[in-house]
Amino acid sequence: MSLKRLGDPSVISDAVIHNNIVYLAGQVAEDPVSPSVYEQTKNILAQIDALLKQAGTDKTKIIKTNIWLSDISTFQDMNKAWKEWVVKGEAPARATVEAKLADAKWKVEIMMTAAI
Amino acid sequence: MSLKRLGDPSVISDAVIHNNIVYLAGQVAEDPVSPSVYEQTKNILAQIDALLKQAGTDKTKIIKTNIWLSDISTFQDMNKAWKEWVVKGEAPARATVEAKLADAKWKVEIMMTAAI
Amino acid sequence: MSLKRLGDPSVISDAVIHNNIVYLAGQVAEDPVSPSVYEQTKNILAQIDALLKQAGTDKTKIIKTNIWLSDISTFQDMNKAWKEWVVKGEAPARATVEAKLADAKWKVEIMMTAAI
Repeated sequence: MSLKRLGDPSVISDAVIHNNIVYLAGQVAEDPVSPSVYEQTKNILAQIDALLKQAGTDKTKIIKTNIWLSDISTFQDMNKAWKEWVVKGEAPARATVEAKLADAKWKVEIMMTAAI
Repeated sequence: MSLKRLGDPSVISDAVIHNNIVYLAGQVAEDPVSPSVYEQTKNILAQIDALLKQAGTDKTKIIKTNIWLSDISTFQDMNKAWKEWVVKGEAPARATVEAKLADAKWKVEIMMTAAI
Repeated sequence: MSLKRLGDPSVISDAVIHNNIVYLAGQVAEDPVSPSVYEQTKNILAQIDALLKQAGTDKTKIIKTNIWLSDISTFQDMNKAWKEWVVKGEAPARATVEAKLADAKWKVEIMMTAAI
């Protein structure tokens, strides 16, 4: 079964498509990075919308989501943006835990898998 | 390929079924939450048994498991409950790391994928 | 759909094969464990090559990768070994975060999914 890779697949692909599933890389907020967890989450989810579209799918078909917060006490700020974004009735399986991210300016990272 | 969602799919689904795989959300211990990592793990694994059953499968068909411990020094306590639960010969691929969880009372979170 | 498990499937399988995808367990450096993140990453990626081969595939077909570093400031050391290993044009979706691992001697853990 063939693999299709989105973005520049030199070091990390933005997304990989295999067997009608798209696997997205961990997404972080784009520059300029807002210090707000809510704004970072909104920015990430907009990037995810664009990647899902590029893969031929959308947020009604998300299967699984992993979220990392650099400070777990910001959970509700992340979740506010999440609730505004997720399609009620079509929410994925999700897990959210705390972890330091690769750059201290990033407070949220989201990795997602969706059906196509 | 259609998606089936278990639980209330407003914000997070308990599980999502796609193409004969069930993807469970990260599971944590139910209230009242035991302070013991061993008891929390047993409680979580019982919830997972129920979700797998609801999805039409069981613990002999687990593919992949991620475990987060709020204190990695409790690894053996978690693993004791795990060894009592997992079907010998049918263990999944697994990774266990430390991470703070969304509520300080939770010391273990487990996310699992299983074939149906 | 049948499941095939590699390694000793008593507690954790080294890898699980299902529907032409292989799911690898989180891999850590073998004894004797180098203190260097670069060397640990190289050792892990060599183990992953062996597991992928055993599963009938190789690193040109990696779909998704999760990397945990016990100290996120070692990101570039890990990424140096990664860039030397990954096949340009065939990089997976990846996420890297910080997490304490089950043994303090381990500074890197890598979990991977690949198409067969």
